[in-house]
Amino acid sequence: MSQLEKAIISMVEVFDEYARKDDKKNQLSSAEMAKLMNKELAGPEFNGKVDQKVIDEALEKLDKNHDGETNFREFSMFLATLARGYYRATKTGKGNKSKSAKPE
Amino acid sequence: MSQLEKAIISMVEVFDEYARKDDKKNQLSSAEMAKLMNKELAGPEFNGKVDQKVIDEALEKLDKNHDGETNFREFSMFLATLARGYYRATKTGKGNKSKSAKPE
Repeated sequence: MSQLEKAIISMVEVFDEYARKDDKKNQLSSAEMAKLMNKELAGPEFNGKVDQKVIDEALEKLDKNHDGETNFREFSMFLATLARGYYRATKTGKGNKSKSAKPE
Repeated sequence: MSQLEKAIISMVEVFDEYARKDDKKNQLSSAEMAKLMNKELAGPEFNGKVDQKVIDEALEKLDKNHDGETNFREFSMFLATLARGYYRATKTGKGNKSKSAKPE
């Protein structure tokens, strides 16, 4: 399997692993989402590189309707946003290194 | 590194690997995109499961402005669409097995 196929399948597997923890097995509750963030997206290779603001804004969008639930559509767009944050960080060298960065 | 972090980083790496093949190193030309599809998204674990219609529609959206170039934002949304196709295929069992499937 290619690296990209693995990536796509991982998106689904990780969502499923956390979403199934409670009764609504096709949605991430806010508690499940918090666990996922904490365990799956807290490493230095990723979290240390992406601007914290990008992550915060992506999380805010996720919870737009305040029902506390994230379906796979919302999750897939959340990951796309994070990927764009990572892309920008690696392309421009602008990451999370300094809190003084001021994006326009 | 977690599975999900690897997935996000792979999205960027694969884009970069193909986009850099010509002068416009931050864009996938249609030729580069075709190569990428052919080499990275043609395996049976992925392509064999996702409804071909989903892939075709995602590709059509990608080339909406007909400039033949795909930037990382567009590519990230393309992958999110494919992930949703894969999610649906695994959840509902509706995949690419039969050409007679009629999604509503």
